[in-house]
Amino acid sequence: MAAALGTADGQILAEGEVPTLSYEGSDAVLVRMAGLLNDLAEQVGKAPQAVGVGVPGTVDLAEGIIRFLPNVPGHWPDVPVRATLSPLVGGVPVYLLNDARMATLGELAYGQGKGVSTMVFFTLGTGIGGGVVVDGKLRLGSLGSAGELGHMTILPDGPVCACGNPGCLETLASGPAITGHGVWLMRCGRAPHLHDLVDGNADLVSPAEMVAAAKAGDESVHEVLIRAFSYLGIGVANQVVTLHPELIVLGGGMAAVGDLLFDTVRDVVKRRVGMFPPDDVRIEPSVLGSQAGIYGGIALAVRGGQV
Amino acid sequence: MAAALGTADGQILAEGEVPTLSYEGSDAVLVRMAGLLNDLAEQVGKAPQAVGVGVPGTVDLAEGIIRFLPNVPGHWPDVPVRATLSPLVGGVPVYLLNDARMATLGELAYGQGKGVSTMVFFTLGTGIGGGVVVDGKLRLGSLGSAGELGHMTILPDGPVCACGNPGCLETLASGPAITGHGVWLMRCGRAPHLHDLVDGNADLVSPAEMVAAAKAGDESVHEVLIRAFSYLGIGVANQVVTLHPELIVLGGGMAAVGDLLFDTVRDVVKRRVGMFPPDDVRIEPSVLGSQAGIYGGIALAVRGGQV
Repeated sequence: MAAALGTADGQILAEGEVPTLSYEGSDAVLVRMAGLLNDLAEQVGKAPQAVGVGVPGTVDLAEGIIRFLPNVPGHWPDVPVRATLSPLVGGVPVYLLNDARMATLGELAYGQGKGVSTMVFFTLGTGIGGGVVVDGKLRLGSLGSAGELGHMTILPDGPVCACGNPGCLETLASGPAITGHGVWLMRCGRAPHLHDLVDGNADLVSPAEMVAAAKAGDESVHEVLIRAFSYLGIGVANQVVTLHPELIVLGGGMAAVGDLLFDTVRDVVKRRVGMFPPDDVRIEPSVLGSQAGIYGGIALAVRGGQV
Repeated sequence: MAAALGTADGQILAEGEVPTLSYEGSDAVLVRMAGLLNDLAEQVGKAPQAVGVGVPGTVDLAEGIIRFLPNVPGHWPDVPVRATLSPLVGGVPVYLLNDARMATLGELAYGQGKGVSTMVFFTLGTGIGGGVVVDGKLRLGSLGSAGELGHMTILPDGPVCACGNPGCLETLASGPAITGHGVWLMRCGRAPHLHDLVDGNADLVSPAEMVAAAKAGDESVHEVLIRAFSYLGIGVANQVVTLHPELIVLGGGMAAVGDLLFDTVRDVVKRRVGMFPPDDVRIEPSVLGSQAGIYGGIALAVRGGQV
């Protein structure tokens, strides 16, 4: 887990990381989290006035309690993060938010979203998450779960997603969905450039290496990427017809692969939005990159838990 | 075209209809529209204080100008409805809105949406349109086109839609999409009950007659309906994961077919939304039915063109 101590205008004074080790249970993780925060405070010589915590799952926003973390052993139902963490960090307020919504808030407050009224943010990585901003405010729904954009159905009879539903965007266009195909192509001899780039090591196959392999001439890899990015384009186009936002931001690690992804997404939006010209919708990379969540934590703390 | 004269609290004092005859051109249509409005005023003995006009296409909201009507000969680019109509109805303000958004506004102001913060409205008929409400306000985007829910892509390689895009919800689940299959099943002998109900007349095949035929035992017709309503359910589920609204309203003529449609949509939402329990999302029929647009016109006039 990563943390930073920052100022209200988005200046980061100190940052650090410690292992999460979630199998040790929530108490141990929260003690380690508090240790990291107190270390940062000591480095800077200033105590934090509030803490924003992003978690990979659903939260009770009002009470500061984790409800469900799908990818953590035991799922941490009803872990009282606010009540546990606050006394460990000098009694300051602690606010919780889903991590993808946190990244959206960071981009809204300190990134591409500054001054924007309607924005849709996609985080592209191991999973696909997101957040929806209307009237300059992040929209959360009753469970903080609005913006689960990776779980739009894009292919009704597609492969089953981690959430159980067939054909979610996440199961078609997330990092592991793409690299799984890449590894398979490498193993069956259809990706010689990819093989060279990663020395045949499946663990090193990433969307970025696959883009490099496609540029070097691996046609099968190129097809896999175009297919996945086109599904992402459909997810983006569906947001365009629903909200006609001013701005779509693609963030998370996979957005860093660059032009092939953005060109494909922009092209799909242009071709698939036929009811009105979508030309005024900007489709841009995050300017905060992997730090969008960190900035979101600062924004949540500064705003006193209001999004 | 239909019109009504109503009060701010949603009481309709008089209503009427005249043929549109759009091939006569916009001037003739607007003169006929003014005639209808002046007739209603005369019946009631009260002149309107403002007029709201719903049109099947894109409009310039600020200027009261039609931009593009996809299904009208010549498409009426830049028809100045406000400037033309206002002098013909006593010089009162004239406000324009897309017809599906107008129905959404009606449902919001006088129907299921009263007091609701986040609502998504689908109009189901010859086409599929809609509207999105956040913070109790209809969200329009820069062209009044947000809420084009019939043009979410549901089946990436599906049949081409009127808008040109393959696999839109509208091309999979609109009235004509469904009845087209029904007529074909009737002609190839797979819908004997439907044949009896409409006396073999293709022009009488409607979603409602198909529901009746399915209940009477036409299994193929039942399959066609379940497939179409399931695609609609995917469109609804995609809105649930995006906005987690309090309320989804299904309106328009086809929503009147009743339980088979609503049961299927609710079941699909329950099965496909796996990231959080969607149990608190109400999925309900419009209470205003075919008059949602009329009530929307009253609401738009009362609100002085603000949605």
